[in-house]
Amino acid sequence: MLILLSFLITLPVNLLLFGDIPDRWAFIRSALICFTVGLACFMVTGRKRHGLKQREMFLLTVSAWIVIPIFSSFPLLLSDLNLSVTDAFFESISGVTTTGSTVLTGLDNLPDDILLWRSIMQWMGGIGIIGMAVAVLPFLRIGGMRLFATESSEWTEKAVPRTNRLARGLVFSYLAITAGCILVYWVLGMDLFNAINHALTTVSTGGYSTSDSSMGQFDGSAILLASSFFMMLGGIPFFLFVRLLNGQYMPLLRDKQVHFFLQFLFGVALVIAVYRMLVDQAPAVDAFVHALFNVTSVVTTTGYASEDYTLWGPLVIVLFFFLTFVGGCSGSTSGGMKIFRFQLSMLLLREQVIRLLHPNAVMARHYNGRIISDEIVASSVAFSFIFLATLAVSAAILAALGLDLVTSLTGAATALANVGPGLGGSIGPAGNFQALPDAAKWVLMVVMLLGRLELLSVFVLFSRHFWRG
Amino acid sequence: MLILLSFLITLPVNLLLFGDIPDRWAFIRSALICFTVGLACFMVTGRKRHGLKQREMFLLTVSAWIVIPIFSSFPLLLSDLNLSVTDAFFESISGVTTTGSTVLTGLDNLPDDILLWRSIMQWMGGIGIIGMAVAVLPFLRIGGMRLFATESSEWTEKAVPRTNRLARGLVFSYLAITAGCILVYWVLGMDLFNAINHALTTVSTGGYSTSDSSMGQFDGSAILLASSFFMMLGGIPFFLFVRLLNGQYMPLLRDKQVHFFLQFLFGVALVIAVYRMLVDQAPAVDAFVHALFNVTSVVTTTGYASEDYTLWGPLVIVLFFFLTFVGGCSGSTSGGMKIFRFQLSMLLLREQVIRLLHPNAVMARHYNGRIISDEIVASSVAFSFIFLATLAVSAAILAALGLDLVTSLTGAATALANVGPGLGGSIGPAGNFQALPDAAKWVLMVVMLLGRLELLSVFVLFSRHFWRG
Repeated sequence: MLILLSFLITLPVNLLLFGDIPDRWAFIRSALICFTVGLACFMVTGRKRHGLKQREMFLLTVSAWIVIPIFSSFPLLLSDLNLSVTDAFFESISGVTTTGSTVLTGLDNLPDDILLWRSIMQWMGGIGIIGMAVAVLPFLRIGGMRLFATESSEWTEKAVPRTNRLARGLVFSYLAITAGCILVYWVLGMDLFNAINHALTTVSTGGYSTSDSSMGQFDGSAILLASSFFMMLGGIPFFLFVRLLNGQYMPLLRDKQVHFFLQFLFGVALVIAVYRMLVDQAPAVDAFVHALFNVTSVVTTTGYASEDYTLWGPLVIVLFFFLTFVGGCSGSTSGGMKIFRFQLSMLLLREQVIRLLHPNAVMARHYNGRIISDEIVASSVAFSFIFLATLAVSAAILAALGLDLVTSLTGAATALANVGPGLGGSIGPAGNFQALPDAAKWVLMVVMLLGRLELLSVFVLFSRHFWRG
Repeated sequence: MLILLSFLITLPVNLLLFGDIPDRWAFIRSALICFTVGLACFMVTGRKRHGLKQREMFLLTVSAWIVIPIFSSFPLLLSDLNLSVTDAFFESISGVTTTGSTVLTGLDNLPDDILLWRSIMQWMGGIGIIGMAVAVLPFLRIGGMRLFATESSEWTEKAVPRTNRLARGLVFSYLAITAGCILVYWVLGMDLFNAINHALTTVSTGGYSTSDSSMGQFDGSAILLASSFFMMLGGIPFFLFVRLLNGQYMPLLRDKQVHFFLQFLFGVALVIAVYRMLVDQAPAVDAFVHALFNVTSVVTTTGYASEDYTLWGPLVIVLFFFLTFVGGCSGSTSGGMKIFRFQLSMLLLREQVIRLLHPNAVMARHYNGRIISDEIVASSVAFSFIFLATLAVSAAILAALGLDLVTSLTGAATALANVGPGLGGSIGPAGNFQALPDAAKWVLMVVMLLGRLELLSVFVLFSRHFWRG
């Protein structure tokens, strides 16, 4: 992975043929360090070929998400930006986890190579998440993906060839959607540099931009609508695109999670648009486009903003507070609690209401044409609980470091769900994370990683069962 | 129930032998109206004796919690306080649901009869909740009490004699604890009037006081500790006291829910005390007593305050935000999400961690020596989901009415969990709900009732299954 990363680090230098590359040597040096360490590790261990046991997969997954951001921060550290170690790590962890919270100000004046590297980190993180969600977590029984397995045999330990075919399909879909997004942004009026940067951070639902005003730097509704469309694609389970590649379009069209995801986005956007038309006399189309864009940005955990939506009135602030938690679909690049867990809860609620009235009714639980096992319910409860408990503990730690209620609460939430912006004066959509104390930045880095790793894959390492025997 | 209520309404007039009763006629008129309507209802329907079907029990339960507060508001409406209908209803609904949010200011100068009536409303609400939790909700399969049934046969429809014996035990425990609380408060220095008022609102975990400074009006740690103790009793399942009456003390001592409830209270109080010692150099004993009192007050959903704890620093504010949701034990007078649901989630989390490492492990779920059925898990998920969804929707409505983020969010939470105070400038522990717009007060009244009725018993009425056939 480090050898692969070293090639990615050289990309800003190689790609920017006509651009501005003041940090050429920072990238070359970082790539060399990364390559050397990678090669050394390979020399020491690479000859031994042995299958990974489950515990080793846990350790590998968690350590990969720590090692990659560390090496990714080197170009930032060695550049002329004079970043502290804390800030460089924050920016690379926020990048690779596709959170998109930034500690850099004056993005518009940053050199092109740094901007491009930020976008590449997010894009790389995006494919990492999809790969982890489809190929690793189901083996580890995390993330509820077993509910979406096309065939139950796909998750047995002998399914490696199938997994390889799936992996190729995922990479191809990801590349194709990114290429499409670059093209559409470019046609709609972005220059090629901005089109590439924003496509990389749109499809990965990352949210880094090339300007402090985020997507607000571009005029017109077309770019916002196109961006909403591609963020939605980034929030849809990618294995559905793989099936599309195989000519099967029904799974995508009939997917219950995707239906609800899109209904939810349009529904909430409509509420906000109507509210703004009533309160601010905002013009209808404009109100709806901006509402849809910003709602999609937060729910898919991208984190772009087209305007400071916290100026749209108290209702919008409260809605965005709750939207921070939702997340996109399972198996996509987005974070958060994920749509299917809400659908599962709604199913159980409906079942409960029926059972209250008909105590002896026999009900089978179905979702997307599959039976929901007791194990899926239990793991969904476990995830939701650990998610909210982590939120409470991390918000309390941030508050103990001196942040106020809204900053602590929304800072912890936006990091845990890998969204990007919080609410309140300093970390809202018009602000950034620069002004926070260093200790708070480190807490947020840990929380971003926990969120990205679906919590349980980290917490299992702290269980005494893990280290026993 | 109305006939019974009419006698309770005469209590402030009859009890205050040496007190100040300017609203004598308001009480007498209210009692007469209440008695007349109750008698009329009884004359029309009382002769028919027939068992209640399940649907009728739902309707009866919900309508009782609406009708009782309406009639309870009459003494306030007819008094010399010149309250608006909104404010009188708010005060009686907040009273009967034992929430304890108040719209009255200058409590210290209110006449004794009004103060006593507020306390009686809460005390009456408290016994109503215990009765509902033990005798009604288990038949309706709400509130998770089936998990705590002493014998499963207790919840069959033929268990009426047993239920009657249980009901007598509950009423006796409630009376005995109230009497004990009055005595202790009086011995510790309250005058008899204050001792009675505060005992009524302590045991019912209601939280109405006779002063704007709540329990802060009394000096010394002894009263705060005694009050914490009796609030804890109010947050413990009352059927355990009934078993104590029968000489069985082991169920109380061994109850897992009670253990965790007490550990949690002391644990959080310790964190806050240490934080205050470090940050404010507060003296240790004083810091711990005040922390324990205010934490117990919020977790048991009482809502007293000994000081404005929002001045204790950002960590304390964030902790109290989350404490608002917790609630006491199931089967007690307290509201909120209830301790056993958190314990259930923790059990499932632990199970999940073990399953991640040992996929084929066979695990039986036990709690308090009982097997946790799949139905209990499903109903706990359904409740938690509808609780948080109701929180989101009601906070959004409050924000649409113009309240800011913190007021909307904590106002909705404190009403839903029947706690009392919120956070933020106007509705915090040092403030009250007077300044909110009338529409917001009505929203909060609905939310208090929803919370008190454990949500599902209300929402089931809106299901098409309820009205079918």
